[in-house]
Amino acid sequence: MIKTITLIGAGNVATHLGKALFNKGFSINQVYSHSKDNAFKLASGLNAMPCNDIKFITDESDLYIIAIKDDAIQSIVNQISFKNKTVVHTSGSIPMDALSGFDNYGIFYPLQTFSKEKELNLNEVPICIEANNEDTNTFLIDLAKNLSENVKEVNSEQRKKLHIAAVFACNFSNYMYTIADDILTNNNLELDILKPLIVETAKKIQDNSPSDMQTGPAKRNDEAVIKNHLEQLADSKDYQEIYQLISKLIIDN
Amino acid sequence: MIKTITLIGAGNVATHLGKALFNKGFSINQVYSHSKDNAFKLASGLNAMPCNDIKFITDESDLYIIAIKDDAIQSIVNQISFKNKTVVHTSGSIPMDALSGFDNYGIFYPLQTFSKEKELNLNEVPICIEANNEDTNTFLIDLAKNLSENVKEVNSEQRKKLHIAAVFACNFSNYMYTIADDILTNNNLELDILKPLIVETAKKIQDNSPSDMQTGPAKRNDEAVIKNHLEQLADSKDYQEIYQLISKLIIDN
Repeated sequence: MIKTITLIGAGNVATHLGKALFNKGFSINQVYSHSKDNAFKLASGLNAMPCNDIKFITDESDLYIIAIKDDAIQSIVNQISFKNKTVVHTSGSIPMDALSGFDNYGIFYPLQTFSKEKELNLNEVPICIEANNEDTNTFLIDLAKNLSENVKEVNSEQRKKLHIAAVFACNFSNYMYTIADDILTNNNLELDILKPLIVETAKKIQDNSPSDMQTGPAKRNDEAVIKNHLEQLADSKDYQEIYQLISKLIIDN
Repeated sequence: MIKTITLIGAGNVATHLGKALFNKGFSINQVYSHSKDNAFKLASGLNAMPCNDIKFITDESDLYIIAIKDDAIQSIVNQISFKNKTVVHTSGSIPMDALSGFDNYGIFYPLQTFSKEKELNLNEVPICIEANNEDTNTFLIDLAKNLSENVKEVNSEQRKKLHIAAVFACNFSNYMYTIADDILTNNNLELDILKPLIVETAKKIQDNSPSDMQTGPAKRNDEAVIKNHLEQLADSKDYQEIYQLISKLIIDN
């Protein structure tokens, strides 16, 4: 039983999800974006109708996937006139209740860092599901299993915490790479030299707890090295502050 | 021309370097460790003589590799009686001058996070070389090229900065994983759910600048989400402080 789907959004998440669903044989009816160009671009690849006015979203699909910026979700939801459909959003932060005006609703949250240009196999991407009733839950889990081997039921409270954890593990670790890049560039070195180490650090925790894998001067409580590093960071009070704070927590741990 | 080598140290770095050199056909004469057990264990695998008293290090090798804890290097160096040999250490932090009592000396610094148990192919590991004269420099570069395709000349000043950058990119990103793990565990979730995202974040910067790859609430300057996350972190002042500080820097960037 192939269900028909309307995509609301044409950004990174909508693009990856839309392509993956289309490739699995799902029929995409419409693609909405406030940008006409983006609506056309994604819709044409999915054999779908583009739409840049939310009033013209039809009620002919089985499922509506809202994949737009968090702060636009409520306003878009308020403009959808029909209520007897299944509607999900893909946000890590917005509670499921934002969709409570519909009969069937839920969350379809793929936990990955998406860039439109970069091809990505969804197969190993965790998809977090939540629904307002058992039937919708089953429907969404079955749908997600078409795309990924890693489907999890995660409630709204857990999803919020998961989003915070992802900010630390991904957004903030990426910022640590940015600081490293900045320090190296200022000393006529390139980040290339650290790339094997960065990948190895991420791979090490695939089979080991990160707290067991912690290394470095703070882990050894090597006060001489820490003091020396802080002195060398004197040019940047911000980097000094981060170095000091994280080192203190590693030592205390 | 196969050179003969003495390993001073039997820890993670000495073990990986020793095995790699042995496998490439280099002859290891002696392995020193203050721990008799560790000296025996590593030496037996390398067809070398174990030694747990620095006085019994012989002068018959062409190269002496000191791979021990930073704060033990100077004391070991002072106990080596002969001076007419080539001596290197493998530390990221200790200046080359620590070895200036020898005729030929330098740095042989493999930039990787080593664990004894984990097999590691040195082939892609950057090896940073510095030497006190041209001949030694050429000798060390040739030696390193036997082990890795990624050999760099890095002076002591750059090596210090490189070490600081590695602390941010690796030790501190690993601590970000630890915080994520802690938040998830406290909410009946497992780090498994974030592992694909962690690896993807590290892989993304292999071909892109990390500052271009930055995503997340701080990058979008999404004040509502940041405020909400900080409220949810109220149980941990430390995590709140890190979240606030790094977010501020990402926003200001």
